[in-house]
Amino acid sequence: MAQKPSIPKGTRDFSPVEIAKRDYIFTTIKSVFKNFGFQSIETPSFENSKTLMGKYGDEGDRLIFKILNSGDYLKKASDNALINRDSKTLLSDISEKALRYDLTVPFARYVVQHQNEIEFPFKRFQIQPVWRADRPQKGRFREFYQCDADVVGSDSLWQEVDFIQLYDTVFYKLGLKGVTIKMNNRKILSGIAEVIGASDKLIDFTVALDKLDKIGKEGVIQEMLEKGISEQAIQKVSPLFMFTGPNQEKLDQLAEMLADSEEGTKGIDELRFIIDTIEAIGLESSRLILDVTLARGLNYYTGAIFEVAAPEGVKMGSIGGGGRYDDLTGVFGLKGISGVGISFGLDRIYLVLEELELFKQVQQPRPDVLFINFGDNEALYATKAIAKLRSEGVKSELYPGSAKMKKQMTYANKRGIPYVVLVGSKEINDGEYTLKNMITGEQSVCKLNELLQIVINS
Amino acid sequence: MAQKPSIPKGTRDFSPVEIAKRDYIFTTIKSVFKNFGFQSIETPSFENSKTLMGKYGDEGDRLIFKILNSGDYLKKASDNALINRDSKTLLSDISEKALRYDLTVPFARYVVQHQNEIEFPFKRFQIQPVWRADRPQKGRFREFYQCDADVVGSDSLWQEVDFIQLYDTVFYKLGLKGVTIKMNNRKILSGIAEVIGASDKLIDFTVALDKLDKIGKEGVIQEMLEKGISEQAIQKVSPLFMFTGPNQEKLDQLAEMLADSEEGTKGIDELRFIIDTIEAIGLESSRLILDVTLARGLNYYTGAIFEVAAPEGVKMGSIGGGGRYDDLTGVFGLKGISGVGISFGLDRIYLVLEELELFKQVQQPRPDVLFINFGDNEALYATKAIAKLRSEGVKSELYPGSAKMKKQMTYANKRGIPYVVLVGSKEINDGEYTLKNMITGEQSVCKLNELLQIVINS
Repeated sequence: MAQKPSIPKGTRDFSPVEIAKRDYIFTTIKSVFKNFGFQSIETPSFENSKTLMGKYGDEGDRLIFKILNSGDYLKKASDNALINRDSKTLLSDISEKALRYDLTVPFARYVVQHQNEIEFPFKRFQIQPVWRADRPQKGRFREFYQCDADVVGSDSLWQEVDFIQLYDTVFYKLGLKGVTIKMNNRKILSGIAEVIGASDKLIDFTVALDKLDKIGKEGVIQEMLEKGISEQAIQKVSPLFMFTGPNQEKLDQLAEMLADSEEGTKGIDELRFIIDTIEAIGLESSRLILDVTLARGLNYYTGAIFEVAAPEGVKMGSIGGGGRYDDLTGVFGLKGISGVGISFGLDRIYLVLEELELFKQVQQPRPDVLFINFGDNEALYATKAIAKLRSEGVKSELYPGSAKMKKQMTYANKRGIPYVVLVGSKEINDGEYTLKNMITGEQSVCKLNELLQIVINS
Repeated sequence: MAQKPSIPKGTRDFSPVEIAKRDYIFTTIKSVFKNFGFQSIETPSFENSKTLMGKYGDEGDRLIFKILNSGDYLKKASDNALINRDSKTLLSDISEKALRYDLTVPFARYVVQHQNEIEFPFKRFQIQPVWRADRPQKGRFREFYQCDADVVGSDSLWQEVDFIQLYDTVFYKLGLKGVTIKMNNRKILSGIAEVIGASDKLIDFTVALDKLDKIGKEGVIQEMLEKGISEQAIQKVSPLFMFTGPNQEKLDQLAEMLADSEEGTKGIDELRFIIDTIEAIGLESSRLILDVTLARGLNYYTGAIFEVAAPEGVKMGSIGGGGRYDDLTGVFGLKGISGVGISFGLDRIYLVLEELELFKQVQQPRPDVLFINFGDNEALYATKAIAKLRSEGVKSELYPGSAKMKKQMTYANKRGIPYVVLVGSKEINDGEYTLKNMITGEQSVCKLNELLQIVINS
């Protein structure tokens, strides 16, 4: 009985057209990474479990795909764990490897393991799939690509400047104009926590503040009070409720608000340097804005925090994000290595480009020219011409098989092949080719060099 | 206590230099695939276990990496299997997914699942990693890339012709001249089996024959006799012991030898068509030879069999192989779809190119220009110049951090960066740049456009 074929939930097959579009995004990002001096590395799809486990919190540990040991995987299993159906205890006995959950931890492991081969500061990029046993839903997959660039071994703010330019360049090249690069600084958040008198209320605070557009100032204040933030504290940070001016104005207001916080002031200085520098250099098509509600990776980032929003009017979560972390590699034994990095959300960028019809320039995955196969004699004549076209970079093929003319023309049509060549005994005798433009229907008889010129110039 | 970082045995990290070389091979192969009209697809890294299991024999099943079910993976486990430590029975209860073992079975699954979206004949290529729990050894890894092209839905021998041209083109473009494309046909092997009177002796026969160079005719005959092949049978195929002439001569000898075998004769006709056609078209730099000892994938291929050997003098197993199979997709319920395909052995091709020093044209993973970072004022001036260079496609970076001049120059040297730019207050005042050629040591002061020209033309 034949199996009905299917793939695991949360995974995807990619068709040639989808691959062409994805490749277009990858190629664009890669070329900008290289243009900015970043180098590519790759790490294995699976790591030793002890490299990954415990790095992403309990929820993360649960979502990591574990690989069963090979052979008799029960040979090290404890009788007790088996009898008690204790899957937690049994796990380390039967599984020693796990699929990569993100690119950051493997990168940290790479840096430590190869520290003697690396020139620091190390600017690396990495584009590889990761796997998460998340509940699949629209736009969330169990296998998806991450696309990261990081610099480790430098605490210079020029890296932050570089990354903003990099985001701008990539989105500009993708034709995605008008993205908003939101920026914050962990130290400013710490300053706000000081001001509101409790760092454990910081997330409640930023979550409430983020709703300003939706529920208005009164609603936000109501929510903050409910979360136990004092009226006095809310009063102190009240400028944040009308925080809509240019970046420079925001910086000034923040400076005043956080004047008593040493860390907050440092955060403002860092942000000011980055914003001033970007203003002096200019961006192609992106907007940089200071957003104090931006609190992603709060337990992770120690300086700059980035998030990129799609152009206005496109409903989509963030299409990129990143930030600075003071100690990436400490957990693997290499202390004091500061890093800063960003990532691109490939699947979401894909959807945005699709929605805005920005894939127009993607080369379709089809040959430029199809030679109709009328029989072995004609096919041999065609094959010699095809070799010539291919050597000139023209994607060409002989219809793969002998079939009725109509079937071959239908194939050309369905694959969207723009030119079809017909050769019969007359053409062979005359050393010519009948070239049909499948879009206009025009047909002409020509020599091979003419044919080549027509196709190349079309 | 910090963990000492390591990766699972049989897996690899790839450094920027290795990635650049691997990308060069991938990019070359991909561009030829596209040039020949092939389309790229991708399938998930893991498949449902039932898609993979039972497709590669018992040994294959054992080597497939299984993924543990998420959450409480023991919840469906039978008490009996647990108590009896019966890892075989338990397997299907605790694991429903497995890592891809090759690209062929997932491709067959893809074709059946997407048969209504596909235009047949379907020319697809696929370059993705696969995983095997093999014992790691020199040149054998647990994670490695496969690189396949197949045509399904056509039994035309023009596909075989196309694939030989494709091999030739790829190796020519990689600078790997003088490879040998060995070719055989399963039907010829069947003919030989008929002649020696026992198809179960066919493998013993080809294995013995393959040793002709090493142990000589007498040795081979001795081994055949030991394996139970009769003297009479050996007599009948004796031309194979002096089988060294041109392909046409070999074809004639085979035709005579296998005249009584209908299938053998068909195989010879097929091979003759392919060899004649390739002779008429010509190859760039490869040699096509008929090799009757070629018996790879004996249980799988039904027509043409290919194998590519590295140029003479390079000690390396086959760097590519493939063949025709009559029924790729039957196991998934789609009968009678003939296919033919080839694959490239990436890791071995890499080693061969390395040995023959054919990676010279690979772009090094480093910027073309490094701007020394003397401080924020100079860095801002530099950053504007860098933006200009990058927009012209010149890979450039500001030294990522402020550090002593010597450290920055050492960084440039170690990364092999060819040009360094120094800007101090004098340069800023004059709107100029001091450009240092790191190879010759030459230094010149120039305007930005001059700098750009020097770097682009170097």
